[in-house]
Amino acid sequence: MAFDNNLLLDTFNGNPTPRPPVWLMRQAGRILPQYRAIRGSLSGFKELVQTPHLAAEVTIQPVDELNVDAAIIFSDILVIPECMGLDYDLIEKVGPRFPETINSLKDVESLDSGKTAAERLGYVYDAVSETVRQLDGRVPLIGFCGAPWTLLCYMVEGKGSKTFSKARAFLMQNPKAAHLLLDKITESCIEYLKLKVKAGVSVVQVFDSWSGVLSADLYNEFAMPYINRILDSITEVPKIVFAKGAWFVLEELGKTSADAVGLDWTIDPEFALSKIDDKIFQGNFDPAYLLGNKEDIPQRAHDMLNRFPKGKHIVNLGHGVYPETPLENVKTFINTIQGK
Amino acid sequence: MAFDNNLLLDTFNGNPTPRPPVWLMRQAGRILPQYRAIRGSLSGFKELVQTPHLAAEVTIQPVDELNVDAAIIFSDILVIPECMGLDYDLIEKVGPRFPETINSLKDVESLDSGKTAAERLGYVYDAVSETVRQLDGRVPLIGFCGAPWTLLCYMVEGKGSKTFSKARAFLMQNPKAAHLLLDKITESCIEYLKLKVKAGVSVVQVFDSWSGVLSADLYNEFAMPYINRILDSITEVPKIVFAKGAWFVLEELGKTSADAVGLDWTIDPEFALSKIDDKIFQGNFDPAYLLGNKEDIPQRAHDMLNRFPKGKHIVNLGHGVYPETPLENVKTFINTIQGK
Repeated sequence: MAFDNNLLLDTFNGNPTPRPPVWLMRQAGRILPQYRAIRGSLSGFKELVQTPHLAAEVTIQPVDELNVDAAIIFSDILVIPECMGLDYDLIEKVGPRFPETINSLKDVESLDSGKTAAERLGYVYDAVSETVRQLDGRVPLIGFCGAPWTLLCYMVEGKGSKTFSKARAFLMQNPKAAHLLLDKITESCIEYLKLKVKAGVSVVQVFDSWSGVLSADLYNEFAMPYINRILDSITEVPKIVFAKGAWFVLEELGKTSADAVGLDWTIDPEFALSKIDDKIFQGNFDPAYLLGNKEDIPQRAHDMLNRFPKGKHIVNLGHGVYPETPLENVKTFINTIQGK
Repeated sequence: MAFDNNLLLDTFNGNPTPRPPVWLMRQAGRILPQYRAIRGSLSGFKELVQTPHLAAEVTIQPVDELNVDAAIIFSDILVIPECMGLDYDLIEKVGPRFPETINSLKDVESLDSGKTAAERLGYVYDAVSETVRQLDGRVPLIGFCGAPWTLLCYMVEGKGSKTFSKARAFLMQNPKAAHLLLDKITESCIEYLKLKVKAGVSVVQVFDSWSGVLSADLYNEFAMPYINRILDSITEVPKIVFAKGAWFVLEELGKTSADAVGLDWTIDPEFALSKIDDKIFQGNFDPAYLLGNKEDIPQRAHDMLNRFPKGKHIVNLGHGVYPETPLENVKTFINTIQGK
């Protein structure tokens, strides 16, 4: 099927487009006053994630307000640990907290996985189908999951970290348990994405937020095989892989079955092109530029556009938009890309 | 002058050595029980930094206990903001906290810099000369400073951060103030390192801990010129530059006047050699390997050694040793390098 605005799918299909599509990681969130109004009326972040009609509403807000070329379902990567049996909470301005963490093979063995786990996330699939119904063919909806390594990080550490040294130590001390955990997460992600596709998403993205704390050797052992299994299992829709900080395995990311590779802002387009020659790129505007002066944004946006090959670029930021970004700056960026 | 153990200086001088020298970033610290004993008896971290005979004592502890081939003066990069007029505290297990931060050109203008600032750090120079006296020619002593960009990060944010988005926004919103701040930090660092050399350090290292949050474009505008000014001003002793996460400007780091370039664990020796061909490398063992099983360490250490050119390698970790690392593992690593 074609959408009223089909720029994203046309790009995936190699069809000519008048301009590149643009959407922003974390576009459905605190940058929008209408999001903050809904969020402020609720008990917590999870209530929003778990209430399909509200998740649908905040998913569609940026399509209305920013006129982006795709929606991304409002959710969180940590629904996967939760459906596997490891509860979490998301504390505003602090981040995720897990009351229990994974420390041993026994802990890993006690987790559910695959279909059993993924089928518990009915509220996500309901949010997807409700969003698709309300979007009514305007733009495609993107579904996502966290990559197994990133999910392991949170499940072992129980919260964010600068170095994730505890998670990395777990790989070293207990590789058997680590691989079993990665396997179980992988099986859950595959079923989860398949159910999202069934509910109506038109594209999927796999996010590996904490790639950058691993070396190439460890990434190739503990991260890449699982990403490949997920990507290879999803054959129904186009796929994006975004491994933040993973410049050292960019060539390997280019060899996956993903249709597009996301780039963070530290990766020059020229470096990316030297490593990957047959994929679409997604990214990679520095989100800090949107914290600067509005007048500087158009020139910087054009500079980025000129460095990527035409027809092979999905415009995005190099990471999620910072919550404190002025809405006017976000609009200036999107309008520049859209030639307004 | 030559030291009883002259491996480090011989490496800098290009003299043949029977094996590479080894020292560890953060070797004087929580991994050592004798450090924890002293630290536990004091009111805070700063008392240790500011008391020369105690700073000297903990500086020498790893030379006695670990038999490393160099000492590094026990201190903190944040003494520079402090001597410029911006007080800080270091809270155990939390990190640095600045009661006041830099937000405007006026804030920057009110800071002291250069000699005026650096001369306030008498306790550091006293610690250096006391350490050199007590080391009595056993091994060389390394002095260090933070790079201007990293110090700006703390002075603007007031604490650590995953993205340092506030510091990056400051560059965008107020480049004039940012450049003046970087200039003032640079002048202070130069005088500081010169006074350290005068007090007796035999090598200096410039640490850029937060390089990795910048892109190459921003690094070349806001970081590299200041690093170059510092390095070019120190002509008396060998110099090491370590910019963590700065893979994207590795070639430029190779063009500085530093004698050695530090590498974090994400940078493969092969990648480094493809970018830099006439420097000594320092690094880059993954500190997470020291959290793993002791039996795995020798093989991993040999694998690293084999990937660097002989005579052009100062062995170190790819970042500071994690405080929770078992002492036995640290010893196994050092003994392996030393062929014991």
